[in-house]
Amino acid sequence: MGNYVHDFTEGGQHLPELLGGKGAGLAEMTRLGLPVPPGFTVSTEACRVYLATGTEPEGLAEEIGAHLAALERRTGHRLGDVDDPLLLSVRSGGRYSVPGMMDTILDLGLNDETVLGLAKATGRERTAWDSYRRLVQMYGSTVMGLDDAHFEEALAAARTAAGAGSEPDLDAETLRTVTAAFQGIVRERSGRDFPQDPAEQLRGAVLAVFASWRGERARMYRRRENIPDDLGTAVNIQAMVFGNLGPDSGTGVAFTRNPATGRRGSCGDYLADAQGEDVVAGIRNTVSLHDMAHLTPRCHRELLKHLRTLEHHYRDLCDVEFTIERGRLWILQSRVGQRTAEAAFRVAAQLVEERVITLDDALRRVTGDQLAQLMFPRFGGGTRGEMLAEGIPASPGAAVGAVVFTAAEAVRRAAAGERTVLVRPETTPDDLPGMIAAHAVLTSRGGKTSHAAVVARGMGKVCVCGAEGMRVDVTERRFTTAGGTVVAEGEEVSVDGTTGVVHLGALPLVPSPVTAHFEGTRAHGDADEVVSSVAALLDHADQVRRLQVRANADTPQDARRSRAFGAQGIGLCRTEHMFLGERRRLLEAMILATDDTTREQALAALLPLQRQDFTEILQTMDGRPVTIRLLDPPLHEFLPDRTELSVRLATQRARGLPVPVRDERLLEAVNGMHEENPMLGLRGARLALVVPGLVAMQARAVAEAVIARRVEGGDPRAEIMVPLVGSVEELRLVRAEITRALNEVQEGLELPIGTMIELPRAALTAARIAEEAEFFSFGTNDLTQTTWGFSRDDVEGAFFARYLEQGVFQVSPFETLDLDGVGRLVEIAVREGRAARPGLVTGVCGEHGGDPASVHFFHRTGLDYVSCSPDRVPVARLEAGRAVLAEEAR
Amino acid sequence: MGNYVHDFTEGGQHLPELLGGKGAGLAEMTRLGLPVPPGFTVSTEACRVYLATGTEPEGLAEEIGAHLAALERRTGHRLGDVDDPLLLSVRSGGRYSVPGMMDTILDLGLNDETVLGLAKATGRERTAWDSYRRLVQMYGSTVMGLDDAHFEEALAAARTAAGAGSEPDLDAETLRTVTAAFQGIVRERSGRDFPQDPAEQLRGAVLAVFASWRGERARMYRRRENIPDDLGTAVNIQAMVFGNLGPDSGTGVAFTRNPATGRRGSCGDYLADAQGEDVVAGIRNTVSLHDMAHLTPRCHRELLKHLRTLEHHYRDLCDVEFTIERGRLWILQSRVGQRTAEAAFRVAAQLVEERVITLDDALRRVTGDQLAQLMFPRFGGGTRGEMLAEGIPASPGAAVGAVVFTAAEAVRRAAAGERTVLVRPETTPDDLPGMIAAHAVLTSRGGKTSHAAVVARGMGKVCVCGAEGMRVDVTERRFTTAGGTVVAEGEEVSVDGTTGVVHLGALPLVPSPVTAHFEGTRAHGDADEVVSSVAALLDHADQVRRLQVRANADTPQDARRSRAFGAQGIGLCRTEHMFLGERRRLLEAMILATDDTTREQALAALLPLQRQDFTEILQTMDGRPVTIRLLDPPLHEFLPDRTELSVRLATQRARGLPVPVRDERLLEAVNGMHEENPMLGLRGARLALVVPGLVAMQARAVAEAVIARRVEGGDPRAEIMVPLVGSVEELRLVRAEITRALNEVQEGLELPIGTMIELPRAALTAARIAEEAEFFSFGTNDLTQTTWGFSRDDVEGAFFARYLEQGVFQVSPFETLDLDGVGRLVEIAVREGRAARPGLVTGVCGEHGGDPASVHFFHRTGLDYVSCSPDRVPVARLEAGRAVLAEEAR
Repeated sequence: MGNYVHDFTEGGQHLPELLGGKGAGLAEMTRLGLPVPPGFTVSTEACRVYLATGTEPEGLAEEIGAHLAALERRTGHRLGDVDDPLLLSVRSGGRYSVPGMMDTILDLGLNDETVLGLAKATGRERTAWDSYRRLVQMYGSTVMGLDDAHFEEALAAARTAAGAGSEPDLDAETLRTVTAAFQGIVRERSGRDFPQDPAEQLRGAVLAVFASWRGERARMYRRRENIPDDLGTAVNIQAMVFGNLGPDSGTGVAFTRNPATGRRGSCGDYLADAQGEDVVAGIRNTVSLHDMAHLTPRCHRELLKHLRTLEHHYRDLCDVEFTIERGRLWILQSRVGQRTAEAAFRVAAQLVEERVITLDDALRRVTGDQLAQLMFPRFGGGTRGEMLAEGIPASPGAAVGAVVFTAAEAVRRAAAGERTVLVRPETTPDDLPGMIAAHAVLTSRGGKTSHAAVVARGMGKVCVCGAEGMRVDVTERRFTTAGGTVVAEGEEVSVDGTTGVVHLGALPLVPSPVTAHFEGTRAHGDADEVVSSVAALLDHADQVRRLQVRANADTPQDARRSRAFGAQGIGLCRTEHMFLGERRRLLEAMILATDDTTREQALAALLPLQRQDFTEILQTMDGRPVTIRLLDPPLHEFLPDRTELSVRLATQRARGLPVPVRDERLLEAVNGMHEENPMLGLRGARLALVVPGLVAMQARAVAEAVIARRVEGGDPRAEIMVPLVGSVEELRLVRAEITRALNEVQEGLELPIGTMIELPRAALTAARIAEEAEFFSFGTNDLTQTTWGFSRDDVEGAFFARYLEQGVFQVSPFETLDLDGVGRLVEIAVREGRAARPGLVTGVCGEHGGDPASVHFFHRTGLDYVSCSPDRVPVARLEAGRAVLAEEAR
Repeated sequence: MGNYVHDFTEGGQHLPELLGGKGAGLAEMTRLGLPVPPGFTVSTEACRVYLATGTEPEGLAEEIGAHLAALERRTGHRLGDVDDPLLLSVRSGGRYSVPGMMDTILDLGLNDETVLGLAKATGRERTAWDSYRRLVQMYGSTVMGLDDAHFEEALAAARTAAGAGSEPDLDAETLRTVTAAFQGIVRERSGRDFPQDPAEQLRGAVLAVFASWRGERARMYRRRENIPDDLGTAVNIQAMVFGNLGPDSGTGVAFTRNPATGRRGSCGDYLADAQGEDVVAGIRNTVSLHDMAHLTPRCHRELLKHLRTLEHHYRDLCDVEFTIERGRLWILQSRVGQRTAEAAFRVAAQLVEERVITLDDALRRVTGDQLAQLMFPRFGGGTRGEMLAEGIPASPGAAVGAVVFTAAEAVRRAAAGERTVLVRPETTPDDLPGMIAAHAVLTSRGGKTSHAAVVARGMGKVCVCGAEGMRVDVTERRFTTAGGTVVAEGEEVSVDGTTGVVHLGALPLVPSPVTAHFEGTRAHGDADEVVSSVAALLDHADQVRRLQVRANADTPQDARRSRAFGAQGIGLCRTEHMFLGERRRLLEAMILATDDTTREQALAALLPLQRQDFTEILQTMDGRPVTIRLLDPPLHEFLPDRTELSVRLATQRARGLPVPVRDERLLEAVNGMHEENPMLGLRGARLALVVPGLVAMQARAVAEAVIARRVEGGDPRAEIMVPLVGSVEELRLVRAEITRALNEVQEGLELPIGTMIELPRAALTAARIAEEAEFFSFGTNDLTQTTWGFSRDDVEGAFFARYLEQGVFQVSPFETLDLDGVGRLVEIAVREGRAARPGLVTGVCGEHGGDPASVHFFHRTGLDYVSCSPDRVPVARLEAGRAVLAEEAR
């Protein structure tokens, strides 16, 4: 082994730090005996020296020379040989994939002389000149740093001059002229000639890859993803092979199992007499892997053997890129393959069944996000509308709406209560109001990291982007599909952000088979294997996880649903959601009461209703904890809107109409209770301390429900939770009132009493608060609002989109817990609360309880449970199990 | 020395832990040779043993017996002697004063026989029986735990039966009957007889004092004041002396200097033929200490000698309680005397002048609160209205308003813009809305810890309480003064919360001499010594302090005032306060702009105005730092109120009147910008990132002002501060925009750029934020709001008052920094910010910067400066100096 350069035969998958992911993979395949075009890797170490010193590492040129000589011996071709030249591909590849790096240079080694040799040796003059002009263009723009637009302009001019519609129509002679023009551009713009010496080309390419590590976009990406700046990249130098040398050549991709469905059996696409870029261009139709057997049976058999080798070796679904050069199969790249959510679960369960991997391994290979995708409602099978387009599934879910083409129209229709789909060529910050107003976003340009994709994902909005067959005409307010269908503003479409498919008309939404399974309704035929895979992996997650999973449920119906989804209790039962209809009127009466008697009467009337609520929920969750939170929101939320009421009464007065005394009193009360910042106003424990009798009524209702259930022989496990506490003194006072009420119902009745930790001060003084709390439940929504100082209602719209776009957030902190700020407070509170009270139970009941990344954090922090919406319970269960495995892997 | 009991001759002031404050003081006086009635102290050690074991410490009875025997020998009287009995006072006294403890039992030793002996020995039968009935009542209620109401009822019945108006009218015979009745009550209620054995009385009293340590109120107080629960109390047992044995007896208080004014020379009050309680009852008029010289010249000379001894010993103003028993002077108690703010400064400066104490000592003896009192405007000398009442000065300041007697009336008049003074016998929680609405609170009952006093102080509202001469008739809505003047609702009064005096009519307010001094206007005659004392002590504080003091100032006028008060710079210059008049209209135009051109025009018009503002302020503060904060508040604060505007337009429409297009557009904009919680909305750095051109305009204006001043030869020290930052990413983006603008004005122009730390997340991620900030300025108002999750506007009124009353707060956290929560965040941010960036400058610019307790905290935490309103600058300077001395004392 040299210092900086390693032949593919020397490395392996254990060396990704040194060789990069791609280099290690190529070496591993070589080691496995797969037919990999020979080559070598310049290590990340060389790159690091270059980055540190700014110059080519000493001895690197000699090492590359020596390896090149060996490569020439093995291939029987020589770099620069005017008759039958060796050509090289040069590809970057570090430990992690970093967008913005210089990627690939193909056909390196071509020059004015070898291009003729290549034409002669392959018998394909056009191919030779096309390869050469591509090299000059690629080398000029990436290695020499020229603007690619110059080359594209020259190419377009040549196309026009030749009267050709697209590049494949250009003949060898034209391409020769283009190549000359490209060389002219290089000379003119850089003041240097395109290097004719292949060795110089190679040296230039390697150093350019190194230098691209420092590019603006690459640096930004690394900072965002916390990839260290000093890792550096490796460079892979490999003999070129050609799939476009006739009918006995070709190129394709193959998968060891179906990456879309996860079904068993290899599959793939093959295109004869073509190079990789031809497949991407999509001008000719590929054939299936199955049909390839007829075209080239020997290579097909060999390929299947290699696929088996790879899957056996990597113990997972793999994909490969391959090329057949004149009847000889070459494997260019292999990796553990990407797959859909459905495939992920199927494959993981299959591999367990086949005893290839353990259940732990399987659990590591599926994610909560994938499970969530499988649980989204989807478009029903029934009457399918015309498929309009297929793009990149950028943000999952299914949405139906009227097509609009401007933000203003989306906002206008949203205000009128209409659901819309915003369609744009691509989105810009000006489209933000529209993206917020619309239910889905569809673009014809841009990939997974485009503005539309990033912002929509951050907002949890359905998005399909880069639907390339589609032409969007904003001026005429319509788009035209690849099939020629014209869709005008206002027409309804159905956008599936999970599959990337867009249909005309409003497709019916049906629950996913996985959800149907939980709900006890039957999954239909085909989905059974997916459902059983999910069930098996959830079972295993339940075995390994330490974190309990509860649900947030406010009604008996919610509670039943929670149980169906596997919740081990209710972590948050919001009593304010019980004040609807008749109860709402009673609550209003209590709020408006100007004397004790009226207020007490209203409270007395509410008591039996609340008791009934609690009794039913405790019955449904018999034997499992139910955490009941005292009334939390500002009371004026139960009264009419101030501005609306003011305008209504003012209008009546101006028209000379009588205004009922009740309305006047109502307005007076609403004005009296008006708060500039209700989120920071009279709510939570503050209400308990200010509204006489409220806490006592609620505590009494809980106590009576518990007694009633015990009389019925049940095992009610009610817990009482005090919201929005900032200091132990508040909790002490409210707790005393609760205890008094419990004792009034039954002397000595004790229920666990705890508090929400949802204010920074509560977290910072957790040791004190723990004196009076048997449990802490982190209200991470409010804690996020106060820690960051923004309210979800006010800033999540336009402002968050802007922040996502400017990179202040990677994801909304209301979706994934902000570990540095909010997470630090959670850690402080858990640590200090437990130190002060060893038996303290800790949980989380914000929406973060169902977010995968957040669940891992809560596990690491040692919480006892997470509680989330019933639908997210399976996701939380899965990720809680995965968190244990992730921890063990550390 | 025994184990538990120490004679006064054995102890001294160095033993307050063992003997309690009172016992140590008595011993110290004894040691100094002052005529202290002999006695001994049962130590706190004995109490601790009692608290730990629940029983009387072993050997304590014997020790007390031995000391008692010695006391009998010294006094020549015997306990229980039927002819001339020794009587004892038993008083509790721990290291710290703890309200709720059993306090004093006098005349212990009286029983059915010794009462006759006392009558005979003193020749005062009535006095003997009065003393005895008091002993039975006191002993019954405090030692035996009976309800004092039983005794009071019996006494009232006896008064009625005797046709006597008050107790002094009861004759010996009646008092004998009352005593018998009291003994009956004891027997009936407790099942035990009032103990006739004086030794048993003594033992019972000592143990009852010990037990009272555990009383509810005492425990609450200790918890609140952080006094350890295991300190225990001492008990002082002392021979009684009598000042009511004829004209050659008497009692009084004396001061070594005037405690009201601080002027040199002793002063005091004397009442012949009286006990201490007679002075308190206030039925007979006292004479001055000066006049006492004529009544009893020898005792007077002796007293003056003792006063000199005490002041020399304690090196401070002292007061004493003394009694003359038949021509013999006894000193009952002495202590370093309480004094007014004026006296504090005068005395401290005098003692330095007299070379009794150092300047450091003097600085320790005055407080920022006292200085603040001296700076309050006060009622002018001119035409003084009739003095109506004098009560306890419970919360300082001067207020004029119309008298109201109900909360509802206060609220009603406040809504009409009227200033009121709420007058009540005492206040209750029901009066809260009225206390909030009124400008001052006046009560006829209650002391410094009454509801009125505590709540008003917490709210910073003027309050005089316990104005006892006054009768308040709420039903008739009037009060009657001791002098008989009747004041009806609506009449104006002037309340001086600093002196406790209330006058009829609206007295003119004048600036205090101290403030006049700072402002450069002349202090008039008499106040010169106070002013020079303040100046001398502030000079010394400036010498010793490490913390710099800046001011919050938004205009050139404010800046000039800041300099006059000694500010070393401007720590917060709020640019939003500059947008008034014409500028306000331009800002509105910018906000309402729907296209870039209009917005840019508005910004361009604002630029020269802002530049002019900055230039003037930089000129005023030449050579001193001026921290300019970018626009912070939500933009809709610059637009009309949403509800008002809606109602106005709706009314116009309902009346069929035309609505101007401009108004409609305005309403549309107001609705569009409406935020549910503006405090948590689009403001601070968020504005900077969302409104194009705003930051650039402001940064440009600062840069141009700096250049302009430099051209004029000035030394402008502008710093630019970014508000409401929650993450380093936001600061990085805004900073880049600022830097760009500075460079556009002058290539290479650099100004310090820093940020407010006013969100919990900013404090928690201070290490990251410090990467982009040259300074941190803690915005403790907003930090308090977000850490506690309440907005000052919404909850400070009714809700805070309730919290103060319930003991959740001792003081509003907006007044004195909440150390456990907000303070902890400040510490984290300072520590971690400095670790990440060693040169980081840190300051505070919330209102806490001028609060004494908070200033000490900021000093301890190592901040570089505090910045507060100009008027508080002297207070901050003084306390910053005192903080250094307090630290040294640790």
